[in-house]
Amino acid sequence: MKRFALKGQICYSAGLDEIRVMRQGYLLCEDGISGGVCLEFPEDWCEAEVRDYGNRIIIPGLTDLHMHAPQYSIRGMGMNLELLEWLNTQIFPEEAKYADLEYAERAYGIFVEDMKRGATTRACIFATLHLPATRILMEKLEQTGLKTMVGKVNMDRNSPDILREQDANRSAEDTVIWLEENLDRYQNVKPILTPRFIPSCTDELMARLKQIQAAYQLPVQSHLSENPGEIGWVQELCPESEFYGDAYDGFGLFGGADCPTIMAHCIHSGEAEQNRMKERGIWIAHCPESNMNLSSGIAPVRDFLNKRIRVGLGSDIAGGSSASIFRTMADAIQVSKLRWRLVDESLKPLTFEEAFYLATKGGGSFFGKVGSFEPGYELDAVVLDDTELKCPNCLTVKQRLERICYLSDERQIVAKYVAGKELFSIN
Amino acid sequence: MKRFALKGQICYSAGLDEIRVMRQGYLLCEDGISGGVCLEFPEDWCEAEVRDYGNRIIIPGLTDLHMHAPQYSIRGMGMNLELLEWLNTQIFPEEAKYADLEYAERAYGIFVEDMKRGATTRACIFATLHLPATRILMEKLEQTGLKTMVGKVNMDRNSPDILREQDANRSAEDTVIWLEENLDRYQNVKPILTPRFIPSCTDELMARLKQIQAAYQLPVQSHLSENPGEIGWVQELCPESEFYGDAYDGFGLFGGADCPTIMAHCIHSGEAEQNRMKERGIWIAHCPESNMNLSSGIAPVRDFLNKRIRVGLGSDIAGGSSASIFRTMADAIQVSKLRWRLVDESLKPLTFEEAFYLATKGGGSFFGKVGSFEPGYELDAVVLDDTELKCPNCLTVKQRLERICYLSDERQIVAKYVAGKELFSIN
Repeated sequence: MKRFALKGQICYSAGLDEIRVMRQGYLLCEDGISGGVCLEFPEDWCEAEVRDYGNRIIIPGLTDLHMHAPQYSIRGMGMNLELLEWLNTQIFPEEAKYADLEYAERAYGIFVEDMKRGATTRACIFATLHLPATRILMEKLEQTGLKTMVGKVNMDRNSPDILREQDANRSAEDTVIWLEENLDRYQNVKPILTPRFIPSCTDELMARLKQIQAAYQLPVQSHLSENPGEIGWVQELCPESEFYGDAYDGFGLFGGADCPTIMAHCIHSGEAEQNRMKERGIWIAHCPESNMNLSSGIAPVRDFLNKRIRVGLGSDIAGGSSASIFRTMADAIQVSKLRWRLVDESLKPLTFEEAFYLATKGGGSFFGKVGSFEPGYELDAVVLDDTELKCPNCLTVKQRLERICYLSDERQIVAKYVAGKELFSIN
Repeated sequence: MKRFALKGQICYSAGLDEIRVMRQGYLLCEDGISGGVCLEFPEDWCEAEVRDYGNRIIIPGLTDLHMHAPQYSIRGMGMNLELLEWLNTQIFPEEAKYADLEYAERAYGIFVEDMKRGATTRACIFATLHLPATRILMEKLEQTGLKTMVGKVNMDRNSPDILREQDANRSAEDTVIWLEENLDRYQNVKPILTPRFIPSCTDELMARLKQIQAAYQLPVQSHLSENPGEIGWVQELCPESEFYGDAYDGFGLFGGADCPTIMAHCIHSGEAEQNRMKERGIWIAHCPESNMNLSSGIAPVRDFLNKRIRVGLGSDIAGGSSASIFRTMADAIQVSKLRWRLVDESLKPLTFEEAFYLATKGGGSFFGKVGSFEPGYELDAVVLDDTELKCPNCLTVKQRLERICYLSDERQIVAKYVAGKELFSIN
């Protein structure tokens, strides 16, 4: 039994409306699991090591519920376009490059190095359709110690020859090969079934993927109701579906107890789609920066929260340019204010407390008991040193945390733990 | 006659729709003025020093048309509020602290150090109402070499006792004392008349300020049409005014050839107000991050551009949290996409080229011939090294510039020139 404690200015979410702060608290860790937070060090822990981070802030690791690793290489560029045109002119040609293993090695190397240094401890990641490149990504991620789910992407229609699987059969067979090889290969990286989105997958492929999902008991990630053009297209492709999400549901790939599912965006989800998501326990990955960059709109997150739909945050690299979930928190708050002002004054803007919840416990819950320091949670922690964000005032810990969300970058991250394991610690 | 040249990957705005790129070009500088950009080094410049920045990108310095220096200390905090409540609970108490010179020394020290390292070369800055603290700010700014305009703030009503001038007379007299002391004191810092906004200034004060403006030939900066609550309040305070801007105009403080004026925000400016701004040659300081943080809305910048109203960008510290005008460029593009999607699909989103124009030539024009490398412009230049923003692809210079706008921070800024003077250069 391995025990240790982190000491410092501890903050974690105690529900949507409250950030619990314990100044100079001890965060207990036993075999990778949180033993809770306390002000007095327990007597029976006297032999456990205490790592004292002083005035530094300790928060749960952040979860990125939606990102595309191969697109990291072109983030922050070509941002004058909307979704479908952007996919065709920027994204598909870039993803096609990952057929080249030297390129994959170099590009994923850069991505993974940056992920290691950021505040994200858990992430759900799209790779490309290529098996060998996806293996490179998974190997590299495994070595970081981050806990991630990675999806080899399925796509057998409506994309250029350079980035499309031959047919449903080939796509399904590749997926099985990939799963047989990787299902239990890694300690930190797990496969997740990843049909790109309805327009990219034939009905036959979706049916095969459902069989695979059921056989291997896989979680699923995909995209939903991001852009009006996309939604209209799905309606044409699946004329029998009641709404976009119903198209996934028709194939059995839309949540439910045996099929934990993340749907990214859900900006234009109407009542019926929201109700179905609630019913099936879908996790929504809210990706506000991406939704600005691609002119997609603003998801009604307040509505989701009111309905008790599960929500977390996603950077959506490279629809989003920044992989920092701190930045995503600020973006989520900011766009919710615009939505309140411009679209619907009945839906109050998100508060800082709520954004912090979404970034930690909200998204973390897709990984199980993750995203909190309450007893029994896997201990993911990020230690933040904001000394260089100079300030003439004495700030409360909570003020400092809010400021970090708006102003910090990877320089403020001085230590990181995932499931109780120290990934790095800078003195 | 002092001549030198900068060599590198040169980019500058050649109008709203075009960023001109000259790879391995020479940017000529003679007595602080640009001699233009060329591919071949002119023979008659053979004795001039060439500073070769290799593959680094050289752009005109950025202009911040609107920021509050005393609020830098509380940026990124207390962001759950709207404008008027935020002013009362966060801003006014903070600004009141600048009565304490030790505090001003410390707080402005931090502000000015950060300004020095950023990409901004010109800025229009609100101080507080305090003369001694404003002197400290101006002294510190002078030493940086940045070219700035600083305003001692006028406010004689509707603010707490701790931050209000006794009456119009006292406010006006203080302003004259301040002007007599500072009008020609500095080479880089010039005074700008700064009535906080209509709700903060009595009619009598506004009338006195007009006399002062005319006597000293001063430029003016203030706020306009930021928030619906504020606009309604102005209508109550000035029932005879046709619209908010007309209230300023009634006092002769709304542009015109003898009264160059910046109005920040202009989010809710209707046709009449926009037409008046056009007529009077007002510069609009567009502050997108602030306008999100304070739930103010999104200014119709496309409309302004169509009408040929002058527009530049502002960080609006601390309505905005980031003092980076690169970040403001990205924000301006992003919110324009949301406005297009959510409010008015007839007003196309801003392009990267347009945002770059606003950040350089658009705002720079308030300072004269500033913001371009065309011959005759004052030579403000920022040299950018994006090596650490690693990328597996060969990028064009323009792609690199776009990426810098989304991803860079002060670490990418390796040299800075203002009016031909090198402020720093990191090897």
